[in-house]
Amino acid sequence: MDKLYIIKIGGNVIDEDEALADFLKQFSTLSGRKILVHGGGKLATRLADQMQVPQTMIEGRRVTDLETLRIITMVYAGLVNKTIVSALQSHHCNAVGLTGADGNSVLAHKREHPITDYGFVGDIDTVDHSFLSHLLEQGLVPVFAPITHNGKGQLLNTNADTMAQEIARALSKTYQTILVFTFEKAGVLTDVKDENSVIAVITRSEYQKLKSGDKIFAGMIPKLDNAFRAIDEGVNRVIIGKAAGLVELINGNAGTTITHA
Amino acid sequence: MDKLYIIKIGGNVIDEDEALADFLKQFSTLSGRKILVHGGGKLATRLADQMQVPQTMIEGRRVTDLETLRIITMVYAGLVNKTIVSALQSHHCNAVGLTGADGNSVLAHKREHPITDYGFVGDIDTVDHSFLSHLLEQGLVPVFAPITHNGKGQLLNTNADTMAQEIARALSKTYQTILVFTFEKAGVLTDVKDENSVIAVITRSEYQKLKSGDKIFAGMIPKLDNAFRAIDEGVNRVIIGKAAGLVELINGNAGTTITHA
Repeated sequence: MDKLYIIKIGGNVIDEDEALADFLKQFSTLSGRKILVHGGGKLATRLADQMQVPQTMIEGRRVTDLETLRIITMVYAGLVNKTIVSALQSHHCNAVGLTGADGNSVLAHKREHPITDYGFVGDIDTVDHSFLSHLLEQGLVPVFAPITHNGKGQLLNTNADTMAQEIARALSKTYQTILVFTFEKAGVLTDVKDENSVIAVITRSEYQKLKSGDKIFAGMIPKLDNAFRAIDEGVNRVIIGKAAGLVELINGNAGTTITHA
Repeated sequence: MDKLYIIKIGGNVIDEDEALADFLKQFSTLSGRKILVHGGGKLATRLADQMQVPQTMIEGRRVTDLETLRIITMVYAGLVNKTIVSALQSHHCNAVGLTGADGNSVLAHKREHPITDYGFVGDIDTVDHSFLSHLLEQGLVPVFAPITHNGKGQLLNTNADTMAQEIARALSKTYQTILVFTFEKAGVLTDVKDENSVIAVITRSEYQKLKSGDKIFAGMIPKLDNAFRAIDEGVNRVIIGKAAGLVELINGNAGTTITHA
């Protein structure tokens, strides 16, 4: 099977023009099939402030009312997505910006929560791997904004990490998929204050040991649980590390690789 | 050659939720290959007001400074484009929203004007007909926001009429293209106050007669000159009429058809 990289960049990179430009330059040099999934950064919050649309956060999550969904659609699918696509084009990387509504590529349903109404937030049901394979086989590079739809005309705000993971999972039927989460740290650290304490490889058995020995920062546990779920569902491996060192991450010279054995 | 419809909707339809919903329902029923090109409507001006970004108009044209380009990208490529795409998906029309940067589909250069600097406004150089043909042959329906790029990382605000025309011209090598401009009038009128005075068919020789006899409203002349230019460059025919009657327009039961002979 051909290799496919699904790479997620977070908000911290998107918020800094230079960091983003550097990341996109590196991304464009990666040969072979690849998909980029981006978050939104602080731009949406800033626009909401300018438009005087109050934002409600519940346990660190944005409640997406109709006005906020409009803002997110403008910022994520418009400004951020097209800025990335045009920058990649300048590096001769033939990007196509998408939301889950485009090509009906990522279908979701509005989240039902017993207590809290998070508003127009989507939980993913299906990814159309044949649409994405077609684009990839033409040498195109899909660039996803974290927005899906329900097939009934409703756009939905969707977690970018989850989106990257579901896309990787769906495409692992056709490709040897490598899922790369970039963030502000150098990888999974044994000492959260020491950037040199990166764990190079984590297998499942090692993960159990690290967890029971309290060797992993609590904030990383959901990310790692997700990574192992991805691997259980067909993803070849998951790499976690710094966006600034993307090429090194891909080459296996930096970051943490999560793998079966 | 297979038929291809390139249909442009203007701002007046986009500004009215019900009119837009009705138009998209009609559009989704058209069988065969089709492309939609949309304008922006008053939403961009409204957002600029909310964000307190002053807008400069010169001879009815918006000067696109960097802040305005950001607003236009948010509104046209984000909110309007994705709202249209998700609505079409709800009618089982497999739409893919694009700007000219996506798939490098429409390359342009920043307009040079001897006197006035219109800012980040693009004049189109090339349309990638092979990228668009690939999408069409997969049964996908491209939906264009009126934004292009220069291939060097710069997005450019572009006239939606021109965009529709250039796309039609480029694809006329591969398809029998029918270019449809929808607007608020029923077609080309001999009496601008009488919606029943629609001229059903205008050939070039007839156009000369109508022009020299002062039988055409001055505002229509640039539109018609453009239509004839499109036909000279390979477009099969141009139809002008009301968005609300799209199906009738396509069936030749309403509007004005501009044709060679």
